Amino acid sequence: MIGKVYLVGAGPGDPDLITVKGLKILKQADVVIYDRLVSKELLKECKPNSELIYLGKGLGEAELQDKINSTLVEKAKEGKIVVRLKGGDPYVFGRGEEECMFVMEQGIPCEVIPGISSAIGVPAYAGIPVTSRWYSSGFTVITGTRAGDKIIDLDYIPKKGTIVILMGINKIDELQESLEKVRSLECPVAIIQNGTLPSQRVVITSLSKLKETVRKENISSPAIIIVGEVVKLRNKLWKLS
Amino acid sequence: MIGKVYLVGAGPGDPDLITVKGLKILKQADVVIYDRLVSKELLKECKPNSELIYLGKGLGEAELQDKINSTLVEKAKEGKIVVRLKGGDPYVFGRGEEECMFVMEQGIPCEVIPGISSAIGVPAYAGIPVTSRWYSSGFTVITGTRAGDKIIDLDYIPKKGTIVILMGINKIDELQESLEKVRSLECPVAIIQNGTLPSQRVVITSLSKLKETVRKENISSPAIIIVGEVVKLRNKLWKLS
Repeated sequence: MIGKVYLVGAGPGDPDLITVKGLKILKQADVVIYDRLVSKELLKECKPNSELIYLGKGLGEAELQDKINSTLVEKAKEGKIVVRLKGGDPYVFGRGEEECMFVMEQGIPCEVIPGISSAIGVPAYAGIPVTSRWYSSGFTVITGTRAGDKIIDLDYIPKKGTIVILMGINKIDELQESLEKVRSLECPVAIIQNGTLPSQRVVITSLSKLKETVRKENISSPAIIIVGEVVKLRNKLWKLS
Repeated sequence: MIGKVYLVGAGPGDPDLITVKGLKILKQADVVIYDRLVSKELLKECKPNSELIYLGKGLGEAELQDKINSTLVEKAKEGKIVVRLKGGDPYVFGRGEEECMFVMEQGIPCEVIPGISSAIGVPAYAGIPVTSRWYSSGFTVITGTRAGDKIIDLDYIPKKGTIVILMGINKIDELQESLEKVRSLECPVAIIQNGTLPSQRVVITSLSKLKETVRKENISSPAIIIVGEVVKLRNKLWKLS
């Protein structure tokens, strides 16, 4: 008897931002493979005899992914319900598609349960809507940390609309340089560290002062960066206090 | 005693895609104001004596928004817990920021609970990741139906990366014309109607045949359109059967 793998998005941090479907499956899991950004509160929801495996550190990127893939398959072949619990959404820079493909190629059923992406949920908790009838008719999500350490490709950034950058803090110099080619120096920018958690911290700056602010305020990962006029709405909207 | 307003994202369609936090608050609500795309299954979760108000039709756009805003405030002033339940996410083309600002300006507390955006969750259920290490280092979300009936602004569309278009079916001719200016005619396109629901329907085409396909297949709203190489992954990934 073969098991099944579920790739479940845990959401951006607040444990209650997992979906009802995701939580139902987490409670049934025999094995849970989780990464660094997953809430420890969520792991308490697992059944008492479930096997919790942390895979998120101590190996190179490629080795780690191989280890995750092989563990998913190995446990499912033992007939188990395996949950791969990932921060945010599995298909937003989560490598979920690589895991899903690998598992299915081994003849094992795999299902994907979306999660609240940090790209949308984190700004919301900071009082920033990614779209607004007044300021932005669209938004673009990019990552500062591309696989293989490639540089940021300006062709992914449109001239207008909100830009949300995930995992950008470690590439902040390059990021500012790239963004300045397509947006004005005065453009408002929000940096949100530990978004949706009680430790959430929001710093507002402008594009020309982005890297300076990150250093001065000592902001570290996990953090997301929002560039655009929508940042101006923050003082008029609900935010996590 | 004053009440409180919650803007809650119901997710793309599957009722189990609401967040745990959203469902908790829905169960406490004295008044629920919902719109057309909200699952009827979710409304069954409300407490027996809650007041369910449908506001989504029969008025002009501006009149309807005024009616929603005034109802939120009126009910909260009666000391009630008021949930505004919206399809998808309140801050992704949901006018949630207008509602939140209006409510807060009246001195009423308002909190936003993000929902799974159709822009990400609907492609996932169709076997399409919005990002992929192989095909796309970013994604852009736009709407075909901008407030005030304005045309699509090409400056919101980058040269590269996945493009997700919400509410685009009624503007399909204009949309194809715009997209052809920035993407190749052979670019793969997926059209997903009733995404994440048992009635989900996925049609694959190319950019040059987009409007022709929508007509031939008789696709109507709600539907989302995904443009980009990631569509090619569909046959290798989990999808709603």
